[in-house]
Amino acid sequence: MTMFNEAMAMKKELVACRRDLHAHPELAWTEFRTASKIARELKRLGYEVLMGDQCMKEDEMMGVPSEAVLQECMQRAIAEGADPELVSRMQGGKTGVVGIMHFDKPGKTVGLRFDIDCLLVDENSTDDHKPSREGFNSLHPGLMHSCGHDGHATIGLGVARLIAAHREEMAGTVKICFQPGEEGVMGARGMVASGIVDDVDYFLSGHIGLGNGEDDSLVCMTEGFLATSKIDAIFTGKPAHAGANPEKGRNALLAAAEASIALHTISRHSAGPSRINVGVLKAGTGRNVIPDQALIQFETRGGSTEINQYMESEARRMIRAAADLYGVEVRLEAKGSAASGNSSPDMGKEIYEVVKGLGVYKDLELSRHVSGSEDCSYFLSRVQQHGGKAVYMLYGTKEAAGHHTSEFDFNEDVLPLTTYTMTELVKHFGNK
Amino acid sequence: MTMFNEAMAMKKELVACRRDLHAHPELAWTEFRTASKIARELKRLGYEVLMGDQCMKEDEMMGVPSEAVLQECMQRAIAEGADPELVSRMQGGKTGVVGIMHFDKPGKTVGLRFDIDCLLVDENSTDDHKPSREGFNSLHPGLMHSCGHDGHATIGLGVARLIAAHREEMAGTVKICFQPGEEGVMGARGMVASGIVDDVDYFLSGHIGLGNGEDDSLVCMTEGFLATSKIDAIFTGKPAHAGANPEKGRNALLAAAEASIALHTISRHSAGPSRINVGVLKAGTGRNVIPDQALIQFETRGGSTEINQYMESEARRMIRAAADLYGVEVRLEAKGSAASGNSSPDMGKEIYEVVKGLGVYKDLELSRHVSGSEDCSYFLSRVQQHGGKAVYMLYGTKEAAGHHTSEFDFNEDVLPLTTYTMTELVKHFGNK
Amino acid sequence: MTMFNEAMAMKKELVACRRDLHAHPELAWTEFRTASKIARELKRLGYEVLMGDQCMKEDEMMGVPSEAVLQECMQRAIAEGADPELVSRMQGGKTGVVGIMHFDKPGKTVGLRFDIDCLLVDENSTDDHKPSREGFNSLHPGLMHSCGHDGHATIGLGVARLIAAHREEMAGTVKICFQPGEEGVMGARGMVASGIVDDVDYFLSGHIGLGNGEDDSLVCMTEGFLATSKIDAIFTGKPAHAGANPEKGRNALLAAAEASIALHTISRHSAGPSRINVGVLKAGTGRNVIPDQALIQFETRGGSTEINQYMESEARRMIRAAADLYGVEVRLEAKGSAASGNSSPDMGKEIYEVVKGLGVYKDLELSRHVSGSEDCSYFLSRVQQHGGKAVYMLYGTKEAAGHHTSEFDFNEDVLPLTTYTMTELVKHFGNK
Amino acid sequence: MTMFNEAMAMKKELVACRRDLHAHPELAWTEFRTASKIARELKRLGYEVLMGDQCMKEDEMMGVPSEAVLQECMQRAIAEGADPELVSRMQGGKTGVVGIMHFDKPGKTVGLRFDIDCLLVDENSTDDHKPSREGFNSLHPGLMHSCGHDGHATIGLGVARLIAAHREEMAGTVKICFQPGEEGVMGARGMVASGIVDDVDYFLSGHIGLGNGEDDSLVCMTEGFLATSKIDAIFTGKPAHAGANPEKGRNALLAAAEASIALHTISRHSAGPSRINVGVLKAGTGRNVIPDQALIQFETRGGSTEINQYMESEARRMIRAAADLYGVEVRLEAKGSAASGNSSPDMGKEIYEVVKGLGVYKDLELSRHVSGSEDCSYFLSRVQQHGGKAVYMLYGTKEAAGHHTSEFDFNEDVLPLTTYTMTELVKHFGNK
Repeated sequence: MTMFNEAMAMKKELVACRRDLHAHPELAWTEFRTASKIARELKRLGYEVLMGDQCMKEDEMMGVPSEAVLQECMQRAIAEGADPELVSRMQGGKTGVVGIMHFDKPGKTVGLRFDIDCLLVDENSTDDHKPSREGFNSLHPGLMHSCGHDGHATIGLGVARLIAAHREEMAGTVKICFQPGEEGVMGARGMVASGIVDDVDYFLSGHIGLGNGEDDSLVCMTEGFLATSKIDAIFTGKPAHAGANPEKGRNALLAAAEASIALHTISRHSAGPSRINVGVLKAGTGRNVIPDQALIQFETRGGSTEINQYMESEARRMIRAAADLYGVEVRLEAKGSAASGNSSPDMGKEIYEVVKGLGVYKDLELSRHVSGSEDCSYFLSRVQQHGGKAVYMLYGTKEAAGHHTSEFDFNEDVLPLTTYTMTELVKHFGNK
Repeated sequence: MTMFNEAMAMKKELVACRRDLHAHPELAWTEFRTASKIARELKRLGYEVLMGDQCMKEDEMMGVPSEAVLQECMQRAIAEGADPELVSRMQGGKTGVVGIMHFDKPGKTVGLRFDIDCLLVDENSTDDHKPSREGFNSLHPGLMHSCGHDGHATIGLGVARLIAAHREEMAGTVKICFQPGEEGVMGARGMVASGIVDDVDYFLSGHIGLGNGEDDSLVCMTEGFLATSKIDAIFTGKPAHAGANPEKGRNALLAAAEASIALHTISRHSAGPSRINVGVLKAGTGRNVIPDQALIQFETRGGSTEINQYMESEARRMIRAAADLYGVEVRLEAKGSAASGNSSPDMGKEIYEVVKGLGVYKDLELSRHVSGSEDCSYFLSRVQQHGGKAVYMLYGTKEAAGHHTSEFDFNEDVLPLTTYTMTELVKHFGNK
Repeated sequence: MTMFNEAMAMKKELVACRRDLHAHPELAWTEFRTASKIARELKRLGYEVLMGDQCMKEDEMMGVPSEAVLQECMQRAIAEGADPELVSRMQGGKTGVVGIMHFDKPGKTVGLRFDIDCLLVDENSTDDHKPSREGFNSLHPGLMHSCGHDGHATIGLGVARLIAAHREEMAGTVKICFQPGEEGVMGARGMVASGIVDDVDYFLSGHIGLGNGEDDSLVCMTEGFLATSKIDAIFTGKPAHAGANPEKGRNALLAAAEASIALHTISRHSAGPSRINVGVLKAGTGRNVIPDQALIQFETRGGSTEINQYMESEARRMIRAAADLYGVEVRLEAKGSAASGNSSPDMGKEIYEVVKGLGVYKDLELSRHVSGSEDCSYFLSRVQQHGGKAVYMLYGTKEAAGHHTSEFDFNEDVLPLTTYTMTELVKHFGNK
Repeated sequence: MTMFNEAMAMKKELVACRRDLHAHPELAWTEFRTASKIARELKRLGYEVLMGDQCMKEDEMMGVPSEAVLQECMQRAIAEGADPELVSRMQGGKTGVVGIMHFDKPGKTVGLRFDIDCLLVDENSTDDHKPSREGFNSLHPGLMHSCGHDGHATIGLGVARLIAAHREEMAGTVKICFQPGEEGVMGARGMVASGIVDDVDYFLSGHIGLGNGEDDSLVCMTEGFLATSKIDAIFTGKPAHAGANPEKGRNALLAAAEASIALHTISRHSAGPSRINVGVLKAGTGRNVIPDQALIQFETRGGSTEINQYMESEARRMIRAAADLYGVEVRLEAKGSAASGNSSPDMGKEIYEVVKGLGVYKDLELSRHVSGSEDCSYFLSRVQQHGGKAVYMLYGTKEAAGHHTSEFDFNEDVLPLTTYTMTELVKHFGNK
């Protein structure tokens, strides 16, 4: 049986895996059940498995929830079948998992990365929505895999299995990284900072959908990810009665309002696109009280990491000054970030040729410009900085609705097909 | 038995009444159980009772909750013992009640006003707090009589009873108004607009506490209430992805931020104090979405109704312009208002002389300047405009904690004492 | 001849003096010719004369022009008849002059103050305007005595002469202060800080006009001067081409705009009136250059010195923060200030009685509330702080047009009448 | 004698012409002497000459000075040698001139454009500056040809002469446009709107310098001009005394400050670069007066005409709303505009080949990206919209100092060289 036929034959199990993950979505840094499932399977397949501090650098993990929330999610994961011993290795939200396999034949080190977290989206529970109709919709109210990371994790496990089955054809080393917290671009930085991909020669990642929405299609590389920073600013002033003693208050609402407006006045950058958005502002407790509390949640973006750096550093100065303007305190909290990132063009072209040779896609596209941000950019740029090559692909599929919506779903045929293609690419690049 | 002794003898029943009301606090326009209890008692005592449209003008009622909320509160009231027939007369939140009694002896018309609503405060449930310790704390989570209106309603019923018992000594007419929704200054305007006090010659109201915090003390009149308007502004823009297409959004957050800042730039008024406060701003749904929704809750105040009018009219223009600035829509909703108000000085002095003659207070103060706002000002100014005289008093008492806090409580001795004093004043002014 | 008749007989010379001053108006700190004329006359009359550092504290002098401007004005003064030796004693703009006379009879120390500077107003040069019609209009283009300080200086010299003529009737000591730079409230602080009025028991000053606009009228005291501070903020950023490299600029215009708006959001003060005004903003050099220069000229006011202090300190913090907001530098320059000030009520009443006894006014008013600011407040409060009493009066007269306009003029009958009255008051208070 | 040698032989006259223009600089819409000189020379050479309404559309002329200024400049031009009859044809500032010549040989229509106005720059008058040293510096204080348009006009006349001398080698038609008011991008729109280049097949223009600063260099085409709009906003409020009656004022300064800040918050556009700059803000008359007058001068830019349109339309709405915010009036005046513009790439390549064949440049560059704006873009896009091709070149030369500075000067060798090259190009494209 050819590798292609083997992958196709795995479809039933891949679908079962994806549906199990879909029913048990977990947010950033709380993917205890998901990671437990992944680690167990990697061990079963003979991989060396890294977890916790072995593949996560604590200082660089952004937006980790409180210990209380982590504990609660650990309990839920165990109650839903996670291995308590594995869960105990993920203390502090270190839910990253890496499977490593060295092959007999010498060769290159190939890195793969799959993201595994879900979103704060309430899943459509009507029969119009296939996961609900077929009974695998989210068991966690308010949480949903509406960005396809359930599929990513599944493909990662499928590739792990197919590689293991074909280890004698493989060369060098494969490192399969399962990354927590891609949503909000929180997780990659901490994983990359552990050094896990520093020795990688060829790196591959990608996303389900986001191409032309057709089945059996593949975009071999993307370029144009914007660098981004996600930051919260918490202002603390002093309350006072607005009628009796307004002069005794320190107005956090006005500081936050002023900061919001000022942020949007940061000058355009002549070197490329820049973005700023204050997405959320919440301030004050009552109509007749000088507001002593305010929160803004904002993001900067830049066409390059440098431009984003300019935006972030202007923003930080402005927020501090806006606090001074109204005599209030302010605390800034980094909630996420991504570098700018582009695929290595020659590796992309090589993938295009290899995949063309496989003859399994109806529609093959060399390259696509994407807007938006993806923290896989940290993997891409780290590998490239260390002399390796890296590519981000798009796995085309028919989608039921837009990403991040309650009705999102995808054609599960993409699972075996992508499993197959990535395994072939690991074989190809390892043998170079 | 003298009237003073009779009032003292009523203490046990007054306390029971106050504690029953304390345990069943009801917010503005939903005082169905409270009003039902009041109406039933007034009828029992032989008063002519006005309810619903008889004493409330619908157009002038501000901040009435949705029909669904009203229905739910009606059900709760009935479940807690309200008379279904009386409740049905309060459709649309018209929870005001007026008791009228004409006396045989010709004389003046004396008006009284007691406010009956509670606050959105979570009552302290520890034994440190007397209502909790003695088991009459709020049965409605999140709601509390933390401003003493339970006491006001109780005094109103006490006075009604004492007057009825002494009707042969009384002259003219007495009108006892039980007003909903004083908190947020929502209710008085609608009651006054019904014309209920247009024929009143002498008008009396007041508040438990807010004096010097001593028992057996009375402030005979207050002056200085600021006129005020409470307004919400709801901005509606258009969402867009902040990275991909920021120019397609219409930013409601920036409009609200700008409005907030601009409101605070309204020029000072040379004719007297003015105030502006944006107490609450909530905007946006997510960090990477151009915010399409925003809300601000603000209030204006003025040393005179004219100054407040200037503040409100400046504010309304500015909010509309701030919406235009960012190309968003805005809706303004009046949530409450009060006129400026001062007691009639000569009536205040007369009260001082009368009460001095009663010899029941340790500490009697002629007049006190108050800041803040009270919608009783609508009663005061309406009576004064129609040629009558009107006074707002402060009924001194030891308070357990500040008004509007979770620990607020007062010495219940103030109930029979105030009942006595107000009855004497009704007798005095009716006989003029 | 009575003192009244003597004063009336001086009219011709007083008018000549006033018209000479009117034709030679001098701005704050450049009153070289005016002060020279005053000093010469005081010496002639036998007064001890203090000048320069003897009556001016350099550190507290605000808004002094550049040395080049001072030199130019000194030259002009000498060219127009000033005594070069006297002018040389006014180096650095110290144009204050004080005349002191001790009387044989022991008594109180009485202080008087007259302000002597002109305004940046272009005088009406048509025949509709009396000074032009009669040929004594300003010889200095752009400068004009349009606030009556020419009259004040003249009255001061008249009083000096009448006192000297009646020195045997006088008691104690008289100190006649001629103050530079009242406009912009720049000059009093530096004169008062020299300690010149620290030993004064009774202090008198006042203003021509500002009463009811009638001749032969007097307001015996004023109350209500607002404390004020006049400040300039100069912002310095970095220019850049707005098309090619906007991100390289540091935008001083936006900092100044933001400062202006923020200043107007300083919270109202519950203790009394407050004011803020950014009266001038100038920024930028060209449409396509990120503006690197900006200037704002603003003032704060307060119903008390404390409220003004609150306004000023809020303003200073805000301006620095607004500069930080846009990453620019800012320099703050104090340009003037006045304390709040009220006349001593019992001295005002005493004046009322004394002046009534003189029988020379048609209309005598005890007290008037004024808005606006006057740096004579520094004299008033310093004298009061040292245990003395102080009063500011208004010398009624028919005015041709409003103060500070090109058409301002007054009925010169006010000169001998006020000369007479003030001399009587010096006699009265010195003899107490 | 070859055409090249002929051009070289014209150097002395070209230099004389340039120096005469340099000594008599004229601002936008007042180039009466310059245009008169051009028209006279074109007639002399046998060109059909269009002037006034024949080549200018009045409605589209932006920033034309007042009639009084125009009259004064006409007088000066005549006093300095302009032909009164020609000047009279330029009423209303219509100082554009077009010379047209039809050749016997049929062929294409080739358009050329030369801009002729000066800048508001004060020329360096020391001997360090060659024009001053050699005595041809500006005779008009405050005005200077510091952008090389004196050279442009001179080249235009040189080309006209060389073409006329070689008319038998030419084919089709040549239209030589002399455009007023390029500075501030005021003039092109009105000239293009007249339809003058609607039938042009090949269009050529360019600029002295702005390349690599080397002599004998040429950039064959540019791309990247930003579209731009230059707008003034004049706000009119109501003055009031800032201490006595601040509430009676309508604050134009705050409206202008708010507008300035808001303009800088216009959202970035995802389709390409955008720019906004408020370059000048002037408001208020005195520190203690609520400012009733304010002016802002701003510009928008966009990577495409559509993006600039978006910026301008956002800006216009915001300015009106900012005026409403403070209850003041505002008037918007368009002062200039340019479209975005790119050279036609194939025509640029053709120029490159033709010029390479001429063998007269040391340094030949195909294309260069420029930032900034040039209203020649209106010519480029109009020709391209009508099916023609258009190119903007850069004529390299050693510059003494940066464009728009007091020390700007260029090596006059560029005059005959560019005259030659452009004539060759006219010949080439006419004969296609």
